[in-house]
Amino acid sequence: MHNDRMTIRVAVAGASGYAGGEILRLLLGHPRLRSGDLEIGALTAGGNAGSALGTQHPHLLPLANRILQETTPDTLAGHDVVFLGLPHGQSAVIANALPPTTIVIDCGADFRLQNAQDWAQYYGGEHAGTWPYGLPELPGNRERLADASRIAVPGCYPTVSILALRPAMAAGLIEPHVTIVAVSGTSGAGRSPKVDLLAAEVIGSSRAYGVGGVHRHTPEISQALSEAANLPVSVSFTPVLVPTSRGILATCTAKTTASASDVRAVYEKAYADEPFIHLLPEGQLPATGSVIGSNAVTLQVAVDERAGTLVVVGAVDNLAKGTGGAAVQSMNLALGWDETEGLSTVGVAP
Amino acid sequence: MHNDRMTIRVAVAGASGYAGGEILRLLLGHPRLRSGDLEIGALTAGGNAGSALGTQHPHLLPLANRILQETTPDTLAGHDVVFLGLPHGQSAVIANALPPTTIVIDCGADFRLQNAQDWAQYYGGEHAGTWPYGLPELPGNRERLADASRIAVPGCYPTVSILALRPAMAAGLIEPHVTIVAVSGTSGAGRSPKVDLLAAEVIGSSRAYGVGGVHRHTPEISQALSEAANLPVSVSFTPVLVPTSRGILATCTAKTTASASDVRAVYEKAYADEPFIHLLPEGQLPATGSVIGSNAVTLQVAVDERAGTLVVVGAVDNLAKGTGGAAVQSMNLALGWDETEGLSTVGVAP
Amino acid sequence: MHNDRMTIRVAVAGASGYAGGEILRLLLGHPRLRSGDLEIGALTAGGNAGSALGTQHPHLLPLANRILQETTPDTLAGHDVVFLGLPHGQSAVIANALPPTTIVIDCGADFRLQNAQDWAQYYGGEHAGTWPYGLPELPGNRERLADASRIAVPGCYPTVSILALRPAMAAGLIEPHVTIVAVSGTSGAGRSPKVDLLAAEVIGSSRAYGVGGVHRHTPEISQALSEAANLPVSVSFTPVLVPTSRGILATCTAKTTASASDVRAVYEKAYADEPFIHLLPEGQLPATGSVIGSNAVTLQVAVDERAGTLVVVGAVDNLAKGTGGAAVQSMNLALGWDETEGLSTVGVAP
Amino acid sequence: MHNDRMTIRVAVAGASGYAGGEILRLLLGHPRLRSGDLEIGALTAGGNAGSALGTQHPHLLPLANRILQETTPDTLAGHDVVFLGLPHGQSAVIANALPPTTIVIDCGADFRLQNAQDWAQYYGGEHAGTWPYGLPELPGNRERLADASRIAVPGCYPTVSILALRPAMAAGLIEPHVTIVAVSGTSGAGRSPKVDLLAAEVIGSSRAYGVGGVHRHTPEISQALSEAANLPVSVSFTPVLVPTSRGILATCTAKTTASASDVRAVYEKAYADEPFIHLLPEGQLPATGSVIGSNAVTLQVAVDERAGTLVVVGAVDNLAKGTGGAAVQSMNLALGWDETEGLSTVGVAP
Repeated sequence: MHNDRMTIRVAVAGASGYAGGEILRLLLGHPRLRSGDLEIGALTAGGNAGSALGTQHPHLLPLANRILQETTPDTLAGHDVVFLGLPHGQSAVIANALPPTTIVIDCGADFRLQNAQDWAQYYGGEHAGTWPYGLPELPGNRERLADASRIAVPGCYPTVSILALRPAMAAGLIEPHVTIVAVSGTSGAGRSPKVDLLAAEVIGSSRAYGVGGVHRHTPEISQALSEAANLPVSVSFTPVLVPTSRGILATCTAKTTASASDVRAVYEKAYADEPFIHLLPEGQLPATGSVIGSNAVTLQVAVDERAGTLVVVGAVDNLAKGTGGAAVQSMNLALGWDETEGLSTVGVAP
Repeated sequence: MHNDRMTIRVAVAGASGYAGGEILRLLLGHPRLRSGDLEIGALTAGGNAGSALGTQHPHLLPLANRILQETTPDTLAGHDVVFLGLPHGQSAVIANALPPTTIVIDCGADFRLQNAQDWAQYYGGEHAGTWPYGLPELPGNRERLADASRIAVPGCYPTVSILALRPAMAAGLIEPHVTIVAVSGTSGAGRSPKVDLLAAEVIGSSRAYGVGGVHRHTPEISQALSEAANLPVSVSFTPVLVPTSRGILATCTAKTTASASDVRAVYEKAYADEPFIHLLPEGQLPATGSVIGSNAVTLQVAVDERAGTLVVVGAVDNLAKGTGGAAVQSMNLALGWDETEGLSTVGVAP
Repeated sequence: MHNDRMTIRVAVAGASGYAGGEILRLLLGHPRLRSGDLEIGALTAGGNAGSALGTQHPHLLPLANRILQETTPDTLAGHDVVFLGLPHGQSAVIANALPPTTIVIDCGADFRLQNAQDWAQYYGGEHAGTWPYGLPELPGNRERLADASRIAVPGCYPTVSILALRPAMAAGLIEPHVTIVAVSGTSGAGRSPKVDLLAAEVIGSSRAYGVGGVHRHTPEISQALSEAANLPVSVSFTPVLVPTSRGILATCTAKTTASASDVRAVYEKAYADEPFIHLLPEGQLPATGSVIGSNAVTLQVAVDERAGTLVVVGAVDNLAKGTGGAAVQSMNLALGWDETEGLSTVGVAP
Repeated sequence: MHNDRMTIRVAVAGASGYAGGEILRLLLGHPRLRSGDLEIGALTAGGNAGSALGTQHPHLLPLANRILQETTPDTLAGHDVVFLGLPHGQSAVIANALPPTTIVIDCGADFRLQNAQDWAQYYGGEHAGTWPYGLPELPGNRERLADASRIAVPGCYPTVSILALRPAMAAGLIEPHVTIVAVSGTSGAGRSPKVDLLAAEVIGSSRAYGVGGVHRHTPEISQALSEAANLPVSVSFTPVLVPTSRGILATCTAKTTASASDVRAVYEKAYADEPFIHLLPEGQLPATGSVIGSNAVTLQVAVDERAGTLVVVGAVDNLAKGTGGAAVQSMNLALGWDETEGLSTVGVAP
């Protein structure tokens, strides 16, 4: 119903943050913008409201003179699509004030979890609800997203972790206990100034954080893998910050008795028709540097016979496919457009 | 017998490599050099023989005019201590040509493994033998090293992985299957020019390598942990390259039913008297940036009750405690000097 | 004559290098590729011939299975456009073997200089000749390029240096002696493996090279500025390598007695209609991070009254507008297409 | 008078900042600490008072449990040496409250400038005064510092810029107008959290700041060069931030008619006896990566005959010789100790 010939008007709330900036970067390259089917409307912010977008995102030259408005239901009204790039917990109020026909695509965590107890334990406060999950590569999700006017964009770590482990889990090739260690650039931590995210602290250093299962993305990964396995899957998840801006490399390990060729066959089949998920040729390993700016997730699988484990390595750009790309991909689906429009599998490298 | 008042004369073979350079950096700060107990003799190299050390290691200004000699038994003869920083497989020939009383400290892998089959599988060719293992923090090793004139310096990944997991393994707190994902700077890959180690390829990118248990450090880790457990321990080890020069951060995960406080007590006891191994206060996580240039290994432990795992994170400077620092620490022990001389727990940060 | 409705077939020689890879990245996003007006033909290489492009440029997923052919006149024949990304001195032989109607766009230095003595002094050997200079922003160049079937793409440092200084020089606002210090990522040094370009050497370090006017881009900058000034301009040029992959930031200084407002007016006028050259708002300074992957050059001007100097700072992506982007921009002009097709002023940040 | 056998008690105000941390790093390696001649007393801070030093500087393991006190005259009383690492403008109040015999070494800018108008123009407010300048390599300074109980540590950019240009200026080899472009890591910007210093913003990007002669270090450089030339020297200074933590590389250009050999002879003579200033062999260029953690400044000179310029390139660790090292060097002199104690010309590389 959204894909008639009228111009789709899009707003971005939280436009001065990294998620908002990435959505705008992708929209500026979207072919529907040039064709006039798509129009960039209100750009809103919190503390940065009133400033020109060019002072916040100098890489978005075509929008440099746009003035950021306050993030309020009023400034966001009158748009067909509203992207939310807000701090966790702030999306529900805004979304509830928008008409049910407005397509609201939330990059925050508020509507990702199905289990209210998980929400309470990991985020605190009341659970806002559950929206269709903007990972079209999961079974049934493309259809759900095509009908959706409320979409929860997956977390960046879950995106690559779930895509890396789901086929093996669904096929029963691994035990329902997985260990994920994911290295990430620091853009995933957001744009608020903190001493431990200063360049002088980060450059030359690697450090884990959220050790011991306390990272908020843990239940989100577990939720999707448990659904795939049809039984509870425990997830030992450790994120590691490294000195890059973008990019997550997830190393996922689980016990297996399957052969390398069986595993490979399962993954080839699972992603044969996926435009953005690429199982690399044998022996070639994913690197985050190859997916920067791209919507691709690259995967490699290996069986360690000595240790009896399957190791799946996946690379993703946390801001692109890990956030803004998934948001645009979801928008495309919700609008009835080709899912891949404005998205690319070509990275900016070296 | 080595610690009488004569001057100890030290040679470094492979002085233009990263291991050789780091040993020289530490020797230049060694108090015995200033006091005259220690003297830097021959510096040798392969293809770089004939050049001044200052062109290879411009950071070693006091030795800038030293000319690199060829690495031969002749140039290395007449020294009390010979450090070997040679490609794997080249140490035995040199070592065998030196007198048995010369203290030979090998930074290569040749003499680390006890099992000849492991050597054949992971390195190929004939196993050269097994020397005392230059990790003084393992039980009995200090005594062995004090009497040794042949010492095998541990690999960089094994150093931090073994120190991170051994206490829990020896205490029976974890199952004998461990998953280690270790991120590393690229100096660990050595100084040979390769396209995939070029700055333009590495900066902005994280990538795994040696996935599926094929990295050569795997059997070395397994060997030490199996000894601690007194039963075979399987090790799923994945190394990840990140854009730093130095530093390894190892995230080590294993199934446990122990409580956090029990685990903490075991680690506190294990390293209470160790000068270089620091269990950080609760909640503070290791960062490689804090141990650059230092001989410290920093550790943190956490129990993930939901996943039923112990996670131990450890940080080490791969060139310092991970190679050159362990070599100097071993030299100190073999010479009867205080183990900590010339070594520091103070890193260069930020 | 090139813009009739037939499909334009494009070859890239040196496709495994950084320039070749960037041209392919841009071609993959070119709207004429999707519309069928453009087709990617032969991809050739030197030592990498025979390998799949995916092993050389894993970020170019849509071309991953393409096999690199040998760089010969034969493999390059039968194309409408041939991009050359070859080592300096190798372009003439290839170009001469191709029909005069083939549009040959050379990313090497062979045909940039007008003065054979400059060539002899800075590159050695015989001067191959002079082709139209692929910097459309210089007066008269758009017209020349529209008619050209041989085009010399400017060097990366000259691109930003010339664009930064030309307006002031042409307007007579500065003395004909300029000082340029340009910091660059290491992709500009190419993809050949060298010890001093290893990540471990580059990360954490800044270093000058080619100090004292010996860098080969010096006469190219001088040539364009002298033409603008209509008198000889001496150029003191120092390049500095810093730990980034891409991006050049040029700081250009010259004596002036002009006022800040006069300077600003000259630059505003000079670039008012240029799609890719952006004078930033007062007080906002160029950053290479804002132009990564983009074809934009951002500039800022400042007058230092105390020192009596004009300082112009410019940022460019050395591989995009500094090489591959200029090549595609030149192709567009030579084919009669809109100059901006397939090129963007939106960078990938952060 | 300070070098009798009593123990020297040292305080560091601003211990949680980068300057304070570096001073502590160097003091921990000072041989007088081990010998008992030196003792680390009060460590004070502003907002971080009350926290353990280990949470602020985890690389200083031996002091990890020290609790930071408030920065007040009271907490700093009773020490023989007090290092001040405070925001500009805060040093005078503290210094005035300490006895005149206490050696106060200020890492801030408050007492560096001789000209009150320069202070007013660049810093604002009232000029606090002028203290002996902690750059012992300037003529007469060693003697001044030996008698001093108030010392102003030079700025980081001035340190390398002055050392790079002074010999040529004093010898009348260059015109009294110099252009300095200095690239710097971000630790020089201090440890306050700011969005534009976040790792995600800095990594992958180079950017100038303070363009047009407005950087506060400009008059400090001009002051020292004018004194050397005995006439006013105008300085066009542009700082550039690059993605490193530490290190400044200054490229200094000035008009000359001198020959390369004359210039070289002047620099060789000027620094022949300096323990920390190294003119590199011809053809070898300074790199910041070679002086990280070291007190060395490395220099190279080149004459560009075509442009008629002298180019001097210098490298320094902004936190070491550029701040904390100069502070400790000054302390050594003021205490009558050997100037080089606790300081090294050996960098931590790669």
